[in-house]
Amino acid sequence: MSTEQQNDRYERGYAALSEVANGAQDAVLDGLADIAPHMGRYIVEFGFGDIYTRPGLTRRQRQLSTVAALAAMGNAAPQLRFHIGGALNVGCTRQEIVEVLIHVCVYAGFPAALNGLTAAREVFESRPDDGPFVPATDAPGGDRFVRGQQALADIDGHAGQQVIDSLKDIAPDLARYVLEFSFGDVYSRTGLDLPTRELVTVALCTALGTVGPQLRVHLHGLLNVGGTREEAVEVITQMAGYAGFPAALNGLTAAREVFAARDGA
Amino acid sequence: MSTEQQNDRYERGYAALSEVANGAQDAVLDGLADIAPHMGRYIVEFGFGDIYTRPGLTRRQRQLSTVAALAAMGNAAPQLRFHIGGALNVGCTRQEIVEVLIHVCVYAGFPAALNGLTAAREVFESRPDDGPFVPATDAPGGDRFVRGQQALADIDGHAGQQVIDSLKDIAPDLARYVLEFSFGDVYSRTGLDLPTRELVTVALCTALGTVGPQLRVHLHGLLNVGGTREEAVEVITQMAGYAGFPAALNGLTAAREVFAARDGA
Amino acid sequence: MSTEQQNDRYERGYAALSEVANGAQDAVLDGLADIAPHMGRYIVEFGFGDIYTRPGLTRRQRQLSTVAALAAMGNAAPQLRFHIGGALNVGCTRQEIVEVLIHVCVYAGFPAALNGLTAAREVFESRPDDGPFVPATDAPGGDRFVRGQQALADIDGHAGQQVIDSLKDIAPDLARYVLEFSFGDVYSRTGLDLPTRELVTVALCTALGTVGPQLRVHLHGLLNVGGTREEAVEVITQMAGYAGFPAALNGLTAAREVFAARDGA
Repeated sequence: MSTEQQNDRYERGYAALSEVANGAQDAVLDGLADIAPHMGRYIVEFGFGDIYTRPGLTRRQRQLSTVAALAAMGNAAPQLRFHIGGALNVGCTRQEIVEVLIHVCVYAGFPAALNGLTAAREVFESRPDDGPFVPATDAPGGDRFVRGQQALADIDGHAGQQVIDSLKDIAPDLARYVLEFSFGDVYSRTGLDLPTRELVTVALCTALGTVGPQLRVHLHGLLNVGGTREEAVEVITQMAGYAGFPAALNGLTAAREVFAARDGA
Repeated sequence: MSTEQQNDRYERGYAALSEVANGAQDAVLDGLADIAPHMGRYIVEFGFGDIYTRPGLTRRQRQLSTVAALAAMGNAAPQLRFHIGGALNVGCTRQEIVEVLIHVCVYAGFPAALNGLTAAREVFESRPDDGPFVPATDAPGGDRFVRGQQALADIDGHAGQQVIDSLKDIAPDLARYVLEFSFGDVYSRTGLDLPTRELVTVALCTALGTVGPQLRVHLHGLLNVGGTREEAVEVITQMAGYAGFPAALNGLTAAREVFAARDGA
Repeated sequence: MSTEQQNDRYERGYAALSEVANGAQDAVLDGLADIAPHMGRYIVEFGFGDIYTRPGLTRRQRQLSTVAALAAMGNAAPQLRFHIGGALNVGCTRQEIVEVLIHVCVYAGFPAALNGLTAAREVFESRPDDGPFVPATDAPGGDRFVRGQQALADIDGHAGQQVIDSLKDIAPDLARYVLEFSFGDVYSRTGLDLPTRELVTVALCTALGTVGPQLRVHLHGLLNVGGTREEAVEVITQMAGYAGFPAALNGLTAAREVFAARDGA
């Protein structure tokens, strides 16, 4: 690359990485010097200089999406801890991070959520200056089923109802659990707004790469609750760095279909 | 949720979790109190009160299916150890657990099976009162290829033969390995009956989310060897808790197609 | 199986495992004696006697492909370390291994590549007799975009350009990153020739099981840069042992489609 290009991307990326790493950025890069120094450059120039510093998503949105994706993938504990710390460094609250990890259990199962919470605890405990963490204890009131039906209608609308209807003939109870647990218990929790829930859902579904139908439903959901197409494209693009380019490319294929369907409608 | 609902689900789930955890249930729940106490409630109410206590599968079937799925996913070691212990606590034998983990190598590769066996060893060694574990040393006799052909015919029937035939033009030796190794060596092992092998196969294929064609073949297989549609739906539904709702929903889509194909036939 | 068959396969496999394990082969097998002795036999007879000793790929090609696949999957650290050591034992250089792990970041993200490099460092440090590792510091010169466009054209040809074009309407910058980063930075690195890059890409895409479109593009790519259909089939077949038979079977379905498309063209 031309030196000019390099300096521009490197400086921009280094500044962003420094915000996320909050002083540990050189340790991250120096740790690669003995085995693959270019990887440090790629992380700075591409990961942060090209992707992370793009407009369209805030630092907080990017960190919460990365935390959700890494927790759902469940195979990158060191990076999950780094990005939980990074989320705190760019202004996310511990409660928001915990809410994202609870949210993960709907899409990747309890083990992924529990191991994510273990990582969060380790990070929180490594930052005693933040003071003791007080977990949320309030739960949404009223009937879970009614609450879930309303949340599903608000978020996923027609596409969500189709999922419920499709289960009637084969597993009607799972339809009930989707309404009562996923939407009545988890989505109805306070502490994370719906656009953020849908943004991190798009992020983790893109990163998992195994849940195409649900990625499409929640791309609609993100747009239904006030998220933008730009946010959808940005969060999918960001997954190139955390789950690889194929995951991002396949996520964009889903986004193209969803956008076209909405334009057609 | 209404208090009544909550108590009912919580009490039922807590009783089931207590059977699986065999005394460690409060440690599991207390371990979440500092960071996400509601997660403990969700595990009890949804994971165990809603799902685990459903009719249609025995505790032993549920634990062996969960062990197979977590070993195949390979990204949830703490939960794999917990559920290997849980399998023992609900009456599975160490031999059955080891057989399930050997079975996993066919569907998720040797690394997943080997890491599952490492987890099993750790759990077995943590229970000295169970006495020394004596692994099975008997192997099926006769010709592997002939034995595998018979097992494939018995289990997967037409769908299995189609897989073999489809390889003739591109990788005939892999077809031979499927017959000799997967069916001649592994499926022909004693220590786990065929309906259980196919049940755990449906569980892990659902959890992996990457092997749709094989999930369909083995849904047929489960029904071919005496498993029921209810068992198939139950084990797929259970995966919502271990691999997330999307995995379960996509597994049910496969089940719907297989059931329809069999009704049409 | 007949004793004759068994001896033949076992002896051939044991000899191959001994090359890869370089003296640690009995430790690997003895480590299974207490819990699943047959697994050791399956690894020797099937994994090495049937698969690993097949013609069509060199030991070095097999080890680099396995390292790429296990690093991309990210859920089998002990086996990744074993096979990094195995790669060195069959004559791969540390630089080749590091290049493969850097390559992995394009397809599985930075976390997978970074954790692979951590495993490589551990293995390198466990072999002090190899002397200090000196990482490559040279980077390709010239303009990244121009370099990437040329590399994409050389490797993926029409299929690659289609991917770029498909992004114009939704995420044109990601198309630029594919050219500048994936092809301009990573693919243009010296230290790993293009046929090897495409071979390990086919291996890891097969093992991941989530990136069908990219597997097809890079099957074309492998053949475009001088790889053979036999190499493609062999490396996909090898993934049966590391990611399971379904991954290999689904990879062969992709290969069949690609071969047919090329014959039709």
